[in-house]
Amino acid sequence: MIVAKGLEGVIVDTSSICRIDGNAGRLIYRGYDIHDLASSLSFEEVAYLLWNGDLPNQGQLEELKTRLDEQRRISANLKTTIRNLPKSSNTLDVLRTAISILGTGIPLKTPDMVDAVGIAAKIPTINAAFDRIRKGQDPIDPRRGLSHAANYLYMLTGNEPDPVKVDALNKYLIVLADHSMNSSTFTARVVASTWSDMYSAITAAIGALKGPLHGGAPAPVLQMLKDIGKPERAEAWMRDELEAGRRLMGFGHRVYRTTDPRAEILREIASQTADKDFFELARNVEETGLRVLQENRPRKKLYTNVEFYSAVVMNSVGLPPDLFTATFAASRSVGWTANVLEQVANNRLIRPEIEYTGPTNRHVVPLNQR
Amino acid sequence: MIVAKGLEGVIVDTSSICRIDGNAGRLIYRGYDIHDLASSLSFEEVAYLLWNGDLPNQGQLEELKTRLDEQRRISANLKTTIRNLPKSSNTLDVLRTAISILGTGIPLKTPDMVDAVGIAAKIPTINAAFDRIRKGQDPIDPRRGLSHAANYLYMLTGNEPDPVKVDALNKYLIVLADHSMNSSTFTARVVASTWSDMYSAITAAIGALKGPLHGGAPAPVLQMLKDIGKPERAEAWMRDELEAGRRLMGFGHRVYRTTDPRAEILREIASQTADKDFFELARNVEETGLRVLQENRPRKKLYTNVEFYSAVVMNSVGLPPDLFTATFAASRSVGWTANVLEQVANNRLIRPEIEYTGPTNRHVVPLNQR
Repeated sequence: MIVAKGLEGVIVDTSSICRIDGNAGRLIYRGYDIHDLASSLSFEEVAYLLWNGDLPNQGQLEELKTRLDEQRRISANLKTTIRNLPKSSNTLDVLRTAISILGTGIPLKTPDMVDAVGIAAKIPTINAAFDRIRKGQDPIDPRRGLSHAANYLYMLTGNEPDPVKVDALNKYLIVLADHSMNSSTFTARVVASTWSDMYSAITAAIGALKGPLHGGAPAPVLQMLKDIGKPERAEAWMRDELEAGRRLMGFGHRVYRTTDPRAEILREIASQTADKDFFELARNVEETGLRVLQENRPRKKLYTNVEFYSAVVMNSVGLPPDLFTATFAASRSVGWTANVLEQVANNRLIRPEIEYTGPTNRHVVPLNQR
Repeated sequence: MIVAKGLEGVIVDTSSICRIDGNAGRLIYRGYDIHDLASSLSFEEVAYLLWNGDLPNQGQLEELKTRLDEQRRISANLKTTIRNLPKSSNTLDVLRTAISILGTGIPLKTPDMVDAVGIAAKIPTINAAFDRIRKGQDPIDPRRGLSHAANYLYMLTGNEPDPVKVDALNKYLIVLADHSMNSSTFTARVVASTWSDMYSAITAAIGALKGPLHGGAPAPVLQMLKDIGKPERAEAWMRDELEAGRRLMGFGHRVYRTTDPRAEILREIASQTADKDFFELARNVEETGLRVLQENRPRKKLYTNVEFYSAVVMNSVGLPPDLFTATFAASRSVGWTANVLEQVANNRLIRPEIEYTGPTNRHVVPLNQR
């Protein structure tokens, strides 16, 4: 029996949503290269593409924007529940709970586009509401007519968002929106394969994204950059970390054998939005990290992964570090929901096997003889 | 490329928890046959076995019972949140939300036994609290010294539970506690493989269990039995269903090629606890269903699955049909948490691949030209 631990290389299904070409370093959504999508489109257009398979025309885009506007608000009841959660909560735990609550009171139904739009619309609202509540501020309702990215920044601060930051966040949301069978998207598909509902699937995916091996790494990258502080300290700091047996965050990915295209796009955005000194620090840490890691593993070429510059970009638009992964969820929710819709359109229960290697033929001994 | 849709036959890891021998119709926990475990042990002993690998001695069992007693209560805050959920909510949506809330305010840590015991202890309390709240009654706190099964029945009604019913529920909880890589347990392992936390993993598993292809079938089985009403109506009713293209609930399972051993144990329990006429009806529907299904698929031998007599047993101990799957979760939570602990003890991120079959080489056209 072959044990495919981690399911590496196991192909679970076919999909027309997203393609990663790990050797060429290309990421494709529905046939479009991520570079093309990020350079000229709105997150709303890309969400439409991922959900429907084609880019929207003007009328379709306006309709989606209207639906997002209608769906962004969260109820007073949900705000109260968020208020009653511990202020120290991990933002992913809050988001997971809020999406789970949104799924209550609804009869079981096959996941549909209404669910998908509703969830994607509300994640920034939930994140921003909790961020304000924990700081003792009142949540700010979304404002009609603002884009998805602009609304997020607006609900966090109440200020008119800076167009440069909106553009940076918009591009971030596009490039993280899907990534084939990553663990959280796979989780969503497994849940959906039982004919459970969309909210169950997305609640599950949020829990998977929380893990440091998946979506939980951008904040530690920022912490690393802050700890290093100055470019000239990078090498010594990183060598110390490796000698202490710790991982350097932001390097390497299971499926890319070359530069992660998302890292390239985010580096370019960071060069435009981040503080100049901080960007130089990041650039230096990236180069130093790759060089130091290469020495230890000369046969395996390593590259910066998406989390490295995600951290720099999210920091530059004003997001607090512990909202980084919750913001990743705001983006990835489109990929999750698109994958759930694809799963249920041609479903088969996902149920693998596991090889039993434990004891055999034991017999129960009465309690007083154990 | 071979696409393993549904991951049927794919072996994701090794495990020493649970073995299904689908050809012999045997189910093994940690080397013990499920028949032996169900015939003489308490759910608490079996939970200890699944978590720790061996049956407890007297001292270990007392310690676990004490910990369960300490962990059963839910906070006033959680009761308030449950009160604020729609009374029409699916019980699995309530349970998913409650477990998610229990995970807030806790720093991220590797899943451990404290998490496992806490979750298993509280699921009956949450289920019973919601059942009472939606009926306009106050939740009843757990009572120290009652067994897990007895406490569940006590919290539902406030009455001293009938020992025959306690014994039936205890056996039900044992035989459903684990079942190898079923979809919800697999979901929990995928989430845990990202180094996320226990609450995220179990919240996700609850969402998967909700699906009618997995844990959501016992209530429809009961509905089928009630709709049929009398043994002599079984055959006509079932033929009509099949002719209308609907599935008969409670028959067939992907991994058993013979009788599901759990179905046998539950049938025996049902014969002792269910109303005599109702048991005869169930027995008749089972035989008729197998005969009718066999005619349509002469090459494939079909058997009753665990859900068929689960429904009869849970009905006989007084559980309302829409608590059947939430009660399944009370049992399976032990298997979920044991599997999460095994996953993190020797972890590898679970991240499969999917074959892209969508369009290629598309180029973005400006919005006004689409």
